[in-house]
Amino acid sequence: MALLVQKYGGTSVGSVERIQHVADKIIAMRKQGHDIVVAVSAMSGETNRLIGLAKEMQARPSPREMDVLVSTGEQVTIALLAMALEERGQAARSYTGWQVRMHTDSSHTKARIENIDGDKIHSDLAEGRVVVVAGFQGADQENNITTLGRGGSDTTAVALAAALKADECQIYTDVDGVYTTDPRVEPNARRLEKITFEEMLEMASLGSKILQIRAVEFAGKYNVPLRVLSTFTDGEGTLISLDEDAEMESALISGIAFNRDEAQLTISGVPDHPGIAANILSPISEANIEVDMIVQNVGGEGLTDFTFTVHRNDFEKTEEVLNSVAKEIGAKQVVGDQQIVKVSMVGVGMRSHAGVASKMFQILADENINIRMISTSEIKVSVVIDEKYLELAVRALHAGLGLENEPEGLQ
Amino acid sequence: MALLVQKYGGTSVGSVERIQHVADKIIAMRKQGHDIVVAVSAMSGETNRLIGLAKEMQARPSPREMDVLVSTGEQVTIALLAMALEERGQAARSYTGWQVRMHTDSSHTKARIENIDGDKIHSDLAEGRVVVVAGFQGADQENNITTLGRGGSDTTAVALAAALKADECQIYTDVDGVYTTDPRVEPNARRLEKITFEEMLEMASLGSKILQIRAVEFAGKYNVPLRVLSTFTDGEGTLISLDEDAEMESALISGIAFNRDEAQLTISGVPDHPGIAANILSPISEANIEVDMIVQNVGGEGLTDFTFTVHRNDFEKTEEVLNSVAKEIGAKQVVGDQQIVKVSMVGVGMRSHAGVASKMFQILADENINIRMISTSEIKVSVVIDEKYLELAVRALHAGLGLENEPEGLQ
Repeated sequence: MALLVQKYGGTSVGSVERIQHVADKIIAMRKQGHDIVVAVSAMSGETNRLIGLAKEMQARPSPREMDVLVSTGEQVTIALLAMALEERGQAARSYTGWQVRMHTDSSHTKARIENIDGDKIHSDLAEGRVVVVAGFQGADQENNITTLGRGGSDTTAVALAAALKADECQIYTDVDGVYTTDPRVEPNARRLEKITFEEMLEMASLGSKILQIRAVEFAGKYNVPLRVLSTFTDGEGTLISLDEDAEMESALISGIAFNRDEAQLTISGVPDHPGIAANILSPISEANIEVDMIVQNVGGEGLTDFTFTVHRNDFEKTEEVLNSVAKEIGAKQVVGDQQIVKVSMVGVGMRSHAGVASKMFQILADENINIRMISTSEIKVSVVIDEKYLELAVRALHAGLGLENEPEGLQ
Repeated sequence: MALLVQKYGGTSVGSVERIQHVADKIIAMRKQGHDIVVAVSAMSGETNRLIGLAKEMQARPSPREMDVLVSTGEQVTIALLAMALEERGQAARSYTGWQVRMHTDSSHTKARIENIDGDKIHSDLAEGRVVVVAGFQGADQENNITTLGRGGSDTTAVALAAALKADECQIYTDVDGVYTTDPRVEPNARRLEKITFEEMLEMASLGSKILQIRAVEFAGKYNVPLRVLSTFTDGEGTLISLDEDAEMESALISGIAFNRDEAQLTISGVPDHPGIAANILSPISEANIEVDMIVQNVGGEGLTDFTFTVHRNDFEKTEEVLNSVAKEIGAKQVVGDQQIVKVSMVGVGMRSHAGVASKMFQILADENINIRMISTSEIKVSVVIDEKYLELAVRALHAGLGLENEPEGLQ
């Protein structure tokens, strides 16, 4: 018998029938003898409907009032799910964020959880109830309603699991686990049985939209075993945990991630002197543009080239800023390209094994794919390539690194 | 400069445009220098939508979860209204029931307010804000969300006015005041400038669906001057208050109320002995049927007739119960009639003036309208007549009692 915290997202609770299905799933787990705490999102579409109403009211809606408004979405779901459980003979009780003292800071629309009081929940569990908690929301010290930002229900579930010292935090979603890469690109993609928090962070930030990054960070920090499962099909999903107990079996490479949302910009012929990187990047960051990869080539003749990537939505704004920077610092030209993608291989095994990066470069070279940028971290190697090569590159890497096979130990 | 508590019902905040209109009205009052606290209902239709969802989930929805669910309706409105006010440059802040410590008992779906903490509201007002409070809802001692039942937003407004010692509680609705009778029946019906709490209670319970009865009781108990006004047209509305200051001017009769929702049942040829009324009525009340008027005729030969009225929805159930009672006690027969109405004249002036009832009976007799039952209280005389005479009776009484004219003193 374990204490499980389960989270069901907007799609999983998107209709009366789906909420009833979730109730059936929970009761099946109860029958196995587990104590269950559930965190739920708003029914899919509801949050957007509410935001639409807000925008009709106020050009830039007050963040405090926005939180009062959108937090109703989850409140509707908790009541409906508790009713569905009781209709099936399972005692249940719903709680909003403030009712379980989900204390956050006061950063409306993007608050951070500071503390949860688990007493009420523990006593409900002891009396045989399923506890249903509104995801995504909390309250600050002055009892103002706050929300954690998009995807915050994952964070709620992890925070509950940490506070309650749950055995596992199960995130139910519309995919049945974390895959070695996107199965829509590589049909041989394989579901991972387990992956480390660090690997998941790298996979998540690269566009695997399964789990909210902050929730994974939070789970890693408090060592909460996290499992991704499908609401709609049975299966074991993927367990995300520390790698300490499984070092010997962990694969060299866990997966191939990619991101189509980036664009590349180069400012070239830049007079090279100390502080030039800051001169270029400060105006970008002042314009609230987030920069991802950065590469500086040391050129000849006291000149250097400077290349970086930003989100495609920010491409035009960045080009504008960069053109005025180029004039100021006497650079030769600014060149941009939106037809690029970032492809990354991720794996904790890399940490203790050299030569993995060159294997990646060789596989791409064998397919005549030109690498435009390279960036490496301890457990990740990312390259920027022409967008048209994306599928080819992912499949070649997936096959070349043997990801379709279960790992049998270190290669 | 006064402190005003205003309440806007579901129709008044039924769309984005109407909420914006309410914001404009509030700002106009602010410009006159008044401090404003607003209580709002859910947007019209929203509460019914939520109840519909609940019924899909659970045959008899849990009252606790029902309150969690439907209280979101008002929470949406407070956020949207606060946004509309801020968009117009008026600082505002929204509060749910629990945020202003609207403490109630634990009777879910029909809770009663026990206490309100006005400190937060007073300090917001002092800083120039309009305070927008969710009507209809509160929280009990254990922080469970409660609701006050249908129409409870009126009660919220009155309770706020009492707790804050407001100068007036203004109930904005879709009619422009309380009338001497229903203008759809008598076009000469006249808007009353003022009426007492007691009269309003008699008018409300007789089918004038303008104000919730409990709100009027509450206002009377705490002597909160209550004004009914239209959201959609300008005007002074009707002031509901104590009558002490206006005794000399108060009309003999304030209005004619009527109720089409009743049905009449008679059990006749009942052997008359002590306790017989209880023998008849106990089974009715055990079946959860509410009885309104009761008349017992003293008959000859040791037999008596017993007549009473119930809500039409309860007619068949009552007839069934009564038939089995008749067998038990050896009564002759049970006769029912659903084609009846109750017509009442209401006025505090009656208290000190005899002969008003007979004037009513004479007016009806002059129209050849047969009276089937009579019941009187201190400030009201009610008669039951055939339904087909309703309009005729109301118009004859309205004219015969001179209600189309402003009162100039006692007649």
